[in-house]
Amino acid sequence: MVTLGVDLGGTNIKVALVDEAGAILQEASRPTNLPRPAEAVCDDIADLCRELMAGRDDVAGIGVGCPGTVDDATGMVLYSNNLDWSNFAMGPYLTRRTGLPVRLANDANAAALGEALAGCAKGADSAVIITLGTGVGGGVVLDGKLLTGYTGAAAEPGHMVIHDAADAPLCTCGRRGCLEAYASATALIRMTKEAMAAHPESALWQLATPQTVVGRTVFDARDAGDAVAAAVVKEYIHWLAAGVANLVNIFFPQVVGLSGGVANQGEALLAPLRAEVEPMVFGHAFAQKRTTLTTCTLGYRAGVIGAALLAREK
Amino acid sequence: MVTLGVDLGGTNIKVALVDEAGAILQEASRPTNLPRPAEAVCDDIADLCRELMAGRDDVAGIGVGCPGTVDDATGMVLYSNNLDWSNFAMGPYLTRRTGLPVRLANDANAAALGEALAGCAKGADSAVIITLGTGVGGGVVLDGKLLTGYTGAAAEPGHMVIHDAADAPLCTCGRRGCLEAYASATALIRMTKEAMAAHPESALWQLATPQTVVGRTVFDARDAGDAVAAAVVKEYIHWLAAGVANLVNIFFPQVVGLSGGVANQGEALLAPLRAEVEPMVFGHAFAQKRTTLTTCTLGYRAGVIGAALLAREK
Repeated sequence: MVTLGVDLGGTNIKVALVDEAGAILQEASRPTNLPRPAEAVCDDIADLCRELMAGRDDVAGIGVGCPGTVDDATGMVLYSNNLDWSNFAMGPYLTRRTGLPVRLANDANAAALGEALAGCAKGADSAVIITLGTGVGGGVVLDGKLLTGYTGAAAEPGHMVIHDAADAPLCTCGRRGCLEAYASATALIRMTKEAMAAHPESALWQLATPQTVVGRTVFDARDAGDAVAAAVVKEYIHWLAAGVANLVNIFFPQVVGLSGGVANQGEALLAPLRAEVEPMVFGHAFAQKRTTLTTCTLGYRAGVIGAALLAREK
Repeated sequence: MVTLGVDLGGTNIKVALVDEAGAILQEASRPTNLPRPAEAVCDDIADLCRELMAGRDDVAGIGVGCPGTVDDATGMVLYSNNLDWSNFAMGPYLTRRTGLPVRLANDANAAALGEALAGCAKGADSAVIITLGTGVGGGVVLDGKLLTGYTGAAAEPGHMVIHDAADAPLCTCGRRGCLEAYASATALIRMTKEAMAAHPESALWQLATPQTVVGRTVFDARDAGDAVAAAVVKEYIHWLAAGVANLVNIFFPQVVGLSGGVANQGEALLAPLRAEVEPMVFGHAFAQKRTTLTTCTLGYRAGVIGAALLAREK
């Protein structure tokens, strides 16, 4: 038995045929071509699915990772800012077009499920996946199941305030001092630019202008021996550690997996992060089991794989 | 079928015979009489259980809420600072003495399970219970099951940092700026005393001295029209709201239930708290379902009821 996973993004629709172990057997994609009606986008999804199903009789279902808030029980996309959809019955629509049962998840949740079941937390009983990208997204998987909450909007670990203060940076959500405002790539770039403005002598200026700074700039300058860059990296890791430790103290998961651009730093990020997180874990001195802090392994394919594995769920 | 619930505290052992709806049929208790060996305490627990079982053949099992970290799968109390126990096989010991299967939970988790299944969140699919007492404890119940995590130590929402700053109050756990350091009754008393020291004109001085301040003092002074007290209450609710909003943004539960001394303020606490939390909930403007913020209903019996209901779990 195999299932189809759909990663519906604002730019591309990606579909993959996935086996029970989470391995991709075949892939296809098309541009999302927004703006257009939800039905037209779903017709393209159905086309891609039929293309990958051709000649097979072992496709058991479709899972879709979709930006926004979904209600998996009814197959409704409740609200998607990226797609400009609200209250669209995506599940029933796709079922009519393909004859297959459809499961829905938020796109970050689908990717978290992929990492939990087939990626960095494969075999673990629980995982918190945190994506350090434009924002801080994530998903929580407990006993193989996504935590979606009563409202379907869980989990939003990026919108946990870690520094509740009037002068804390404003988050996109309207609160000040959210993890996202300190630990996203966007926040890292902001901190790097602030350091450049304050330190014209920094080697950061040899690697970038304020217009060309990216997430890795400050890590590269730190590796080249720049003290200003080292201070920014230290501060960034401090805030990220506070957020990770909070999530460990809430879930005590077997694995915390980091993904997104900043996580590409690998051990250069993980080693100092582990050193900061460990003493902040409640009861760490007496703990017999410890959370493993690592990076994700599936890359951009986590979404289609997770969506396909969601479709296997009873 | 009925089950036995045990609430093992540092002062008293409380045992209750509980029906499937969470109603207490019979109760018994003895002093814990610490310090003494774990086996002696468990012999008393077994005596109390046998007392309540006398003449019945429908007692299906025992649940125990125990301070510290437990491993329910093996029946081990891994570490309990209050009891001064470590690595004690409590489950197997009690089974030998009573002939009944034994389930273990941390005491705060047992109380949370009681509230979730038979108290303020009865019938809800998910609940986060937060106890505002000497510390800030709590428990999370998802689809009728306790979140205990990989390590067994979940959840510790009180040890989520909400104000990561060098001048933030030190928490008992060693971190600065934890929810516990801002939202416990202890923190409220600290803030009240600080306000009294800064404001000798405050009506707080008519209600208490710094030695006799309790959690409700500042609410009473606020109700009597004292502006200094009103400012303290406002600040306390602000910090509590930040923590509650963080937990909503992580779990999006159906119910958040507050217990402990401060929660006795009821609507005087809940109404302003809801007003602060609502705009901090991620996606609140588009949400079709909302978390209910309320107070717990079972009082000190939540522990025995939750422990007994844990014993019913498959």
